[in-house]
Amino acid sequence: MYRKIYLSCLFLFLLVSCKIKSEDTTTVNSNDSTTTVATSGDPLPSWNDGTLKSDIIAYVKKVTTKGTPDFIPVENRIATFDNDGTLWAEKPYVQELFAFYRVKKMVEANPALAQKQPFKAVVEKDKTFFEKGGDKALIELVAATHTSMTEDEFEASTKEFFAGAQYPGKNVSLKQIRYQPQLELLNYLRANGFKTFIVTGGTIELVRAISSDFYGIPKEQVVGTSFKYVFDDATNSVKRLPALDLLDDKAGKPVGIQLHIGQRPVFACGNEGGAGDLAMLRYSSGSKYPSFQMIVNHNDSIREYSYQEKDNLSLNTAAKYKYHIISIKDDWKKIFADK
Amino acid sequence: MYRKIYLSCLFLFLLVSCKIKSEDTTTVNSNDSTTTVATSGDPLPSWNDGTLKSDIIAYVKKVTTKGTPDFIPVENRIATFDNDGTLWAEKPYVQELFAFYRVKKMVEANPALAQKQPFKAVVEKDKTFFEKGGDKALIELVAATHTSMTEDEFEASTKEFFAGAQYPGKNVSLKQIRYQPQLELLNYLRANGFKTFIVTGGTIELVRAISSDFYGIPKEQVVGTSFKYVFDDATNSVKRLPALDLLDDKAGKPVGIQLHIGQRPVFACGNEGGAGDLAMLRYSSGSKYPSFQMIVNHNDSIREYSYQEKDNLSLNTAAKYKYHIISIKDDWKKIFADK
Repeated sequence: MYRKIYLSCLFLFLLVSCKIKSEDTTTVNSNDSTTTVATSGDPLPSWNDGTLKSDIIAYVKKVTTKGTPDFIPVENRIATFDNDGTLWAEKPYVQELFAFYRVKKMVEANPALAQKQPFKAVVEKDKTFFEKGGDKALIELVAATHTSMTEDEFEASTKEFFAGAQYPGKNVSLKQIRYQPQLELLNYLRANGFKTFIVTGGTIELVRAISSDFYGIPKEQVVGTSFKYVFDDATNSVKRLPALDLLDDKAGKPVGIQLHIGQRPVFACGNEGGAGDLAMLRYSSGSKYPSFQMIVNHNDSIREYSYQEKDNLSLNTAAKYKYHIISIKDDWKKIFADK
Repeated sequence: MYRKIYLSCLFLFLLVSCKIKSEDTTTVNSNDSTTTVATSGDPLPSWNDGTLKSDIIAYVKKVTTKGTPDFIPVENRIATFDNDGTLWAEKPYVQELFAFYRVKKMVEANPALAQKQPFKAVVEKDKTFFEKGGDKALIELVAATHTSMTEDEFEASTKEFFAGAQYPGKNVSLKQIRYQPQLELLNYLRANGFKTFIVTGGTIELVRAISSDFYGIPKEQVVGTSFKYVFDDATNSVKRLPALDLLDDKAGKPVGIQLHIGQRPVFACGNEGGAGDLAMLRYSSGSKYPSFQMIVNHNDSIREYSYQEKDNLSLNTAAKYKYHIISIKDDWKKIFADK
């Protein structure tokens, strides 16, 4: 979230408006994938047949077959997924939409805020403020819009946001920017005894607000960027302070995993774009059990987006360590969930 | 763990050796309670019949009956239990035994440490050092013995400790200081769709080392005191630094709950002794769902221990807010697990 690419997209959205290609509207499976359990037939219908799909299925079969040296006990079948760009689209980040929503609401309630930074910069679409301020200004914006309130107040705010939000350029609900093949993969893993976690650079409570409904993942299985909290006995509430506790990105991801999960994931999936997931994949690869790492390559300018890291770090690292690469263009028959 | 009572017991153990009464050896149920699911008959055989047992069962029935205003959806059936003095005995703390074990191992490997604080004080049984140093010295001891190593190394160390440890005064394994009635309660709640969590003032990885085997609770459902971590890409490992991140006691418990679980528990159980669980119980009582709070009263000097807070804060608060009190003497037919 605090990467340069985030900053760029923030302004693409703010000042130019992100160009988003229309989605493939082919309907393969209109079931709610978060509750469907794949038990027979093709467990991954939205994945094209090919090496990657075969590799995923072979891995899952291998580690769930009792009596073999590759068998992984159920309690160690931990699967972690990044969220932005891995489970749903990230152009722009939903976190960013939420921050703007919060600015709007906060300025409506207190118009004087419009004269105060970082609100002023958002209201006036002042590109320079964020360009000059860099990550610091961006964290300031998230802190100003996501903290200094109780958790109950924040939760109410996210509910209102998700109920009404439309994804820019596409005019669809935020449920419809989820990747259908990944919903099937989450279900397939769960049907085989894996516990699925989201490990996101986004703020933890924002993702928790929709994790169950969107992905079938309970709140306690979301690991994310978190602020410091304090408990107030008088009001019997937990309040979030405007101070970062964990930036759950890059080297922060194994830290978040250790804190929240307490063991290395055996299955990990991230995406290229900001090199935010490499540490998580590397950490997973150090498991004492057979492990599986994947990186989503956003190479489909027609059906999704095409964006690559300037130094190609994620894909180069994937090649070095033999991580699997999901080519959206070639591996995904259908990209977005219908509803 | 950092409370005065901890400090007192540390020295009771260190210098005087804690007096521990022998357990009630009546065998009610020799099954492994962590895997037994109570489906019929008496789900809580080690609880004496009476108001409290009836209240627990009535509450669980009430909130799991569909179509009533009291019904709690499965995803919100969160139950949190303190560990020391609530799920197992705390005279002395197991955390303390582990710290001494680590001191012994570290001094064996590097005899020069015996001349360095806080190791020197432990080796020489120097009561004054810890009395003068207070909480700071104690945190220093835990930091010196629990950090500056990788998580893999720490895990190996806990395995070795738990495999050989005997509880002082009782000469039983650490599994045998678990409270049998609580194991049954954990199972009963899980059989009714509750997700059970440990929320401990102890350090998170020490409890995670045994949570599954001792309580049927997976690592990721343990919330505890944690140190700061750092990920090292070169060695592909997470290392724990000698700096506290969260002291998961008192007002730190709702903070840990928000961070790890993300919602208020509807069922919470702690114990009197150090007033460490009051904030957790209060936080639970603020749930929008019907909720249930309990405090273990250590009032059985014959079968367990008898110790009370000087100001009686926990029991007074329980009376004020109508929390349920577990009288070990009256409510528990059998106290300790057999194996």
